Amino acid sequence: MKNNNKKLNLIIKNIFKKHKLRSEHAKICADALINAELVGAPSHGLSRLKMYCDRINKKVINPNPKIKIKKISQSITQIDANNSIGFVAADIGIKKAISNAKKTGIGLVAIKNSGHYGLSGYYAEQAVEKNLIAMCFTNAPPAIAPHGAKKSLFGTNPICFGTPTASKVPFILDTSVSVINRGKIRVAARTGKKIPEGVALDKFGKPTTDAKKALAGVQLPIAGFRGSGLAWMVDILSGVLTGGNHGGKVKDPFDDFSGPQNIGHLFIVIKPNLFVGNYNQRIRENIKRIKKLPKIKGVKEILYPGQSKSRRYKKNINKKIKISPNIDKDLKELNNI
Amino acid sequence: MKNNNKKLNLIIKNIFKKHKLRSEHAKICADALINAELVGAPSHGLSRLKMYCDRINKKVINPNPKIKIKKISQSITQIDANNSIGFVAADIGIKKAISNAKKTGIGLVAIKNSGHYGLSGYYAEQAVEKNLIAMCFTNAPPAIAPHGAKKSLFGTNPICFGTPTASKVPFILDTSVSVINRGKIRVAARTGKKIPEGVALDKFGKPTTDAKKALAGVQLPIAGFRGSGLAWMVDILSGVLTGGNHGGKVKDPFDDFSGPQNIGHLFIVIKPNLFVGNYNQRIRENIKRIKKLPKIKGVKEILYPGQSKSRRYKKNINKKIKISPNIDKDLKELNNI
Repeated sequence: MKNNNKKLNLIIKNIFKKHKLRSEHAKICADALINAELVGAPSHGLSRLKMYCDRINKKVINPNPKIKIKKISQSITQIDANNSIGFVAADIGIKKAISNAKKTGIGLVAIKNSGHYGLSGYYAEQAVEKNLIAMCFTNAPPAIAPHGAKKSLFGTNPICFGTPTASKVPFILDTSVSVINRGKIRVAARTGKKIPEGVALDKFGKPTTDAKKALAGVQLPIAGFRGSGLAWMVDILSGVLTGGNHGGKVKDPFDDFSGPQNIGHLFIVIKPNLFVGNYNQRIRENIKRIKKLPKIKGVKEILYPGQSKSRRYKKNINKKIKISPNIDKDLKELNNI
Repeated sequence: MKNNNKKLNLIIKNIFKKHKLRSEHAKICADALINAELVGAPSHGLSRLKMYCDRINKKVINPNPKIKIKKISQSITQIDANNSIGFVAADIGIKKAISNAKKTGIGLVAIKNSGHYGLSGYYAEQAVEKNLIAMCFTNAPPAIAPHGAKKSLFGTNPICFGTPTASKVPFILDTSVSVINRGKIRVAARTGKKIPEGVALDKFGKPTTDAKKALAGVQLPIAGFRGSGLAWMVDILSGVLTGGNHGGKVKDPFDDFSGPQNIGHLFIVIKPNLFVGNYNQRIRENIKRIKKLPKIKGVKEILYPGQSKSRRYKKNINKKIKISPNIDKDLKELNNI
């Protein structure tokens, strides 16, 4: 963490501590929120701080969880997060998956009774930094209608995959299976902006570009039956398999304080040199071939997933994060609790 | 195998035996091709028989491979298929992944030096029949342009996921990341039919509905950057990681006889009751909730992935597979070799 946002990081950490998180957990949360801002994903950043605090105050996030870590084998671990804030459970989970993979070649970690954990890519990056391949799955509150249904049930359920690239910029695919991220619609709703066409339906099943109507309605999955199937797969892997909520039962963290979210996460981490001695050389060659292809008109460079994000991060790390008046109000109120 | 297609199965098996496959390998191949016809995927069925035989004749498929199976751990196995026909390598691989998962909870199997193995779902089904969850990845010859490129490089690289459902019909998602399957375009080209708009570009980068022009051009990925990223992920998992060809180096099995395909496959198989005692009950509940949702106009039933295929199979299993004049000619020629 550069100095530019050190003060902001401390303020956020302090807010979480005031909300009864122990110091190391508060740090995990502050780092994750600052990271989301720096990679250009403000929908997963400071705009969520108040929500997390509200959930703690309403006792649907447990600020002082007794997290149970159950070793099933050298490769497999189960974590019951005891309704911790998602960042903390996921941080423990990915670290466990990393150490399992280092020991045995593959790490499989299932987490239940967790909450929204921010960006999947943030956890995949941790594994890639240790020179490992990672897949991360989590479900989310209903936002997407299954193919053929007019009611949303699946979350935007990201599919996330990361691999070392033999360069400083990791390959991090972190793609929701909705046409656009729910967070972006949420930001548009907060700022009064319109959303693109073809992204969502209102609650009556009609196409809409009004972000608020879209939030009350249904988001569209990518590629119809295919995207719907991928969302379903993520719901099964992260919810049905782990013991987390599934099938539309994950509560919206902003709107529903009737109980904990009980989100499930699943991490699969794999050693890249299990089957080949020269993974680094192979992945470098793979990326090189693809980046060298002839480009369509108007495209300057073929980017691999994670490159844009890394560039935004590098640009933003030397600047102070811009605080909107709304967020500033949140920070002041939460700090003076 | 019901009696209706027993004779056809024997003919195909005999053709493979005449092409020097040992009897049990010939049976694996015949079963896989018949299955593709029965599930309504003729693009992966008899229309490929001649291609496989041609590749054996031109010595780019090894009919009598020495397949090396290397145990890396109780969970992890590496297979060098020695340029076997893909069906055989994949059959050995999925069975190994199943037995590893039964022993340890998770099975990871990487296969290299293999070839086109037909439908991913066929292998996921084998795991699901043993009450296991499966993910199957394979790459394929260039068909899809990476986002921003005007030349195809990724295969249609399917993402395949299967799970038991506590019913006789498994959940099998087997979705290529192209808008439609290359096999369907191939069938359209053979039968002179048009393909839908928005599916492919010709070799000059212009949209086309001419199947032959599409085969010479570029297929479009689902959802732009997202689909392109998913195709890239599959190329890395099945090619870069396994030791197989990758980055556009997989040869087209129909057109390029200059060497073996060296395709890679990756199978991940997981025990469903690792983290919960009642997976069957949970998945039944999950599917029930989703199928009960209010439907959009004109939709009679919300289907989970694999249901349509299962229904086609049940309908077709009691009938004889229809043999087109082209296929009939192939069968006769190949049988009288």
